[in-house]
Amino acid sequence: MKRYRREDENSYALGITLTFELLKYAPEYARKVYIHSKMQEGESLDKLLMLCVECNVPVEYGDKPFNILSQKENCFVIGEFKKSHRDVTGNANHVVLVNPSNAGNMGTIMRSMAGFNVTDLVIITPAVDEFDPKTVRASMGAVFHLNISVFDSFEKYSEAFHGRNLYPFVLKGKKSLSEAEFVKPYSLIFGNEATGLPDSFLEVGTGILIRHSANIDSLNLPIAASIALFAATKGDF
Amino acid sequence: MKRYRREDENSYALGITLTFELLKYAPEYARKVYIHSKMQEGESLDKLLMLCVECNVPVEYGDKPFNILSQKENCFVIGEFKKSHRDVTGNANHVVLVNPSNAGNMGTIMRSMAGFNVTDLVIITPAVDEFDPKTVRASMGAVFHLNISVFDSFEKYSEAFHGRNLYPFVLKGKKSLSEAEFVKPYSLIFGNEATGLPDSFLEVGTGILIRHSANIDSLNLPIAASIALFAATKGDF
Repeated sequence: MKRYRREDENSYALGITLTFELLKYAPEYARKVYIHSKMQEGESLDKLLMLCVECNVPVEYGDKPFNILSQKENCFVIGEFKKSHRDVTGNANHVVLVNPSNAGNMGTIMRSMAGFNVTDLVIITPAVDEFDPKTVRASMGAVFHLNISVFDSFEKYSEAFHGRNLYPFVLKGKKSLSEAEFVKPYSLIFGNEATGLPDSFLEVGTGILIRHSANIDSLNLPIAASIALFAATKGDF
Repeated sequence: MKRYRREDENSYALGITLTFELLKYAPEYARKVYIHSKMQEGESLDKLLMLCVECNVPVEYGDKPFNILSQKENCFVIGEFKKSHRDVTGNANHVVLVNPSNAGNMGTIMRSMAGFNVTDLVIITPAVDEFDPKTVRASMGAVFHLNISVFDSFEKYSEAFHGRNLYPFVLKGKKSLSEAEFVKPYSLIFGNEATGLPDSFLEVGTGILIRHSANIDSLNLPIAASIALFAATKGDF
């Protein structure tokens, strides 16, 4: 066993809560569950072991994987899983992240997506690793609820999924989010943390602007994406 | 010079962008500007030095403070400032954070507050340090735009600022955010990251709920606060 690297076939859910999410929502990808010698016996462990039996996932005892994979002192369970996607579908609403660069941000966006029931995520590369243990952790397990597709250009995505309503979020957007109507199936499109979307997106669909004061240059990416999800879905709740 | 500790009288804006924010928006608190030997000569440096002269802030050259204070390799300017507040005012709208525990989250909320022009922040202790360099960095300098007051209980805050409209954000809130009207001057009140607000807040003002799916337990704290700020202020932009 080695430290996680992006090219690995498997990744890891660090901690018992994330491992439960893995076994409940993506059991088909679960490969193994590691248990540390300091893991307390009791109801949680019993439930975990039962779920492993149900999902046919082998359990391995020992502390070595924890020294290699986890920096946290209170991590006593690790779920290993195959890095595999359920693809996004054409009928669903999408969030499209163009060149996102931060694992914590991507995970936070995943959590908001699961929260607002927009469960199809499109990633345009180059991008941060959607299965990095840091992404998984920041998502609080929401990554296991999502359908994900990865494209190496926005053009390839829009060819594969044509006839959708595209809403790029740009500072030069013509429509204010407060007044925008999102027609399904829609794609909410966000750019990189530092650079935003390139100007070519001004020609795409309906550009949306989240109005804010001049005190800041821009909103934090997961904040902008989550506000957009709230505004786009609020009729659904 | 030592590593930053909470009890210190001064804190630090790490990086040239944050230091500009300090000198522009809170020059009265700026104490010193440190410049690394690797800082490139040119327009940015000239502008910075000019601003230091205008604000009467001494400049010190040398690499030692950077080895002590910054973990980032590309940090070549540090602004030292006195940890001091402009107090919140009764006429303004407030964000009230009850026992926030994460510096990055607090900084992100500050950035959204500056973005949505709700610039008065109340902190109920125990709480993370609002002047921790990590908070300052996550705020992207927004901390220098804010008025901040700290109380050691919510009761003391509500005694000091009575007659306001209080909106605690609670999972058991009766009013959905999508339908809520916020009457000024209002206080948007948020609990700790892990535990939320205690049940005693069910008796306070009008409880607000941000509806989300059962896929997640709760929204991330800065996400919830920023969505609330967007919803409360959208008539203002």
